[in-house]
Amino acid sequence: MKIVIIGCSGHYGYALDGISFNNKYTIVGISPGVEEENIDKIYEKVRKDHQEVRVYKDYLRMIEELNPEIAVVNTYCTKNEEIVINLLQRDIHLFIEKPLTTSMDSLCKIKDAYSKSKSHLCSMMGIRYHAAFLTAYQIVKEGGIGKVKLINAQKSYKLGQRGNFYEKRDYYGGILQWVGIHGIDWIYYFSGQEFSSVYGRSSELIEKDGNEIEMSGVCQFELTNGVYATLVTDFYRPETANSHDDDRLRVVGTKGIIEVRDNQVFVMSNDREGSQEIHLLEEKNIFEDFLESIEGNKTCFVSSAEVFEVTKASIYAKESADHNKIMFWNEVN
Amino acid sequence: MKIVIIGCSGHYGYALDGISFNNKYTIVGISPGVEEENIDKIYEKVRKDHQEVRVYKDYLRMIEELNPEIAVVNTYCTKNEEIVINLLQRDIHLFIEKPLTTSMDSLCKIKDAYSKSKSHLCSMMGIRYHAAFLTAYQIVKEGGIGKVKLINAQKSYKLGQRGNFYEKRDYYGGILQWVGIHGIDWIYYFSGQEFSSVYGRSSELIEKDGNEIEMSGVCQFELTNGVYATLVTDFYRPETANSHDDDRLRVVGTKGIIEVRDNQVFVMSNDREGSQEIHLLEEKNIFEDFLESIEGNKTCFVSSAEVFEVTKASIYAKESADHNKIMFWNEVN
Repeated sequence: MKIVIIGCSGHYGYALDGISFNNKYTIVGISPGVEEENIDKIYEKVRKDHQEVRVYKDYLRMIEELNPEIAVVNTYCTKNEEIVINLLQRDIHLFIEKPLTTSMDSLCKIKDAYSKSKSHLCSMMGIRYHAAFLTAYQIVKEGGIGKVKLINAQKSYKLGQRGNFYEKRDYYGGILQWVGIHGIDWIYYFSGQEFSSVYGRSSELIEKDGNEIEMSGVCQFELTNGVYATLVTDFYRPETANSHDDDRLRVVGTKGIIEVRDNQVFVMSNDREGSQEIHLLEEKNIFEDFLESIEGNKTCFVSSAEVFEVTKASIYAKESADHNKIMFWNEVN
Repeated sequence: MKIVIIGCSGHYGYALDGISFNNKYTIVGISPGVEEENIDKIYEKVRKDHQEVRVYKDYLRMIEELNPEIAVVNTYCTKNEEIVINLLQRDIHLFIEKPLTTSMDSLCKIKDAYSKSKSHLCSMMGIRYHAAFLTAYQIVKEGGIGKVKLINAQKSYKLGQRGNFYEKRDYYGGILQWVGIHGIDWIYYFSGQEFSSVYGRSSELIEKDGNEIEMSGVCQFELTNGVYATLVTDFYRPETANSHDDDRLRVVGTKGIIEVRDNQVFVMSNDREGSQEIHLLEEKNIFEDFLESIEGNKTCFVSSAEVFEVTKASIYAKESADHNKIMFWNEVN
């Protein structure tokens, strides 16, 4: 099966890792998604295992000439709507960087195109497949903490050096959409509930090395059945810290509390004494899962319905922050 | 100096501990604040060191007959306004359980009475004096993490057996006012900023052993100078956990991040390698500090102005939750 890669501004690495042990798939083409993207580096990487890979300037010409089954898209968010609709109209399966898009108008158009397409669609929510998150989710799903009532999510990153992609907030969606969306995803699938409302705040845009950065953002969600959730995001993690990110999740249930911290999982519950560290399941690869779902062997852990809803929640969070008001699901849309 | 205790529904223990090494102070009287309070147990405790202590049914008769300099008040919140105003009018110094009161109307009356009184007033924000919180605050105050930009506070408690005091939510103010107020206090004094807005949510009241309990609550605060804060509270801590409470605080600054967790303090900053555990300062007693401030040797770490503002923030948080709307400081009052 033929795969193309459009853009190089995100986590295309998931795809390279996911097909590295499977010679059924060949990367046949690479193009930038927008002019500003320099694809030299990704080309060098891909060429090692896919000598025949061709480079295009224009993604549309690439898909028309190469006729791929699958596209990996990770470019400026502002370009996603056009690319996604073009791919969906051609029934090309789509593995795309989050956020899928940055406005409700655009999300509606994409959902409409998806409903008329045969494409499978998955977004790069790769953290779901990390060992600690897989392990915690299994325990919650099996009822190990009872009914979920409260979730607290944290995404703290080093700012480091950010590329052109951050030159405009719209290119990446701002801190709540680019960073926070993972936390929003955790809140959504760990709770098993639907979103009711969100109130988000994000810090003012500062100029840093020519980029537009929001250094911090917070959100508070209400979900169905009286579930509440908080999300904190920031780029303040010191450069001296021992990892790039400090991802944390705390899920509080009627029978116990589970936490993911430092890639470890801790559980307290009425059945256990004190706080216990849990042996981790094995890490998986999101792209491999997506490929298997296309082949029909299984459903993808990250469903298209979830991608659409989590994207919507991230857009609402950002719009809430921008207009300083609560966004209610039953009022809009 | 003569001290009386009114009520027994809260942390009068701070006062007993605080005067245990100082024979300048004598507890001369104890009364319930409301009829429902049974003061037998506190009487037995107090009598050991203060043999002359007298028991009254009516707090007003007690203060009129005994003429104390200081009153320790911890009774049903619904009774506080009346008691506090009676004490302030007599210039009796006041060490009172939080929340000071549960409505803005009542808070205004208390502030008015305070402005005409010679009394000192302090609320039972005793967690400020715990070793880990003292240590963390000293580091933040000395600039160890730069300018504070983001704060996340957690108060997770075992539900355990709650007394009559919880029979009606109004008696204790609900989870955001009774439990959450400590986190609101941390947010206020660690940030060094003023509150701008709060959006709070709290879970539905459930009946549990004849009491009205909100099992969880969350708040999101905005403060001046672009500081955001989240607060989570719950009564879901399993009974098997190794402590009653799981107090946590994370303060994110422009140069580092400090955390209080498990009564320990951890700091990351650009000046340090990785996350470092900090040697703790010695724990102090809030009532001792209050007594010293009355004697004029120093100002109390918990000022009356802070008590009023934190009480207001807790009332706003509750009202926000009750009406499902953001409360803005510049719109109301």
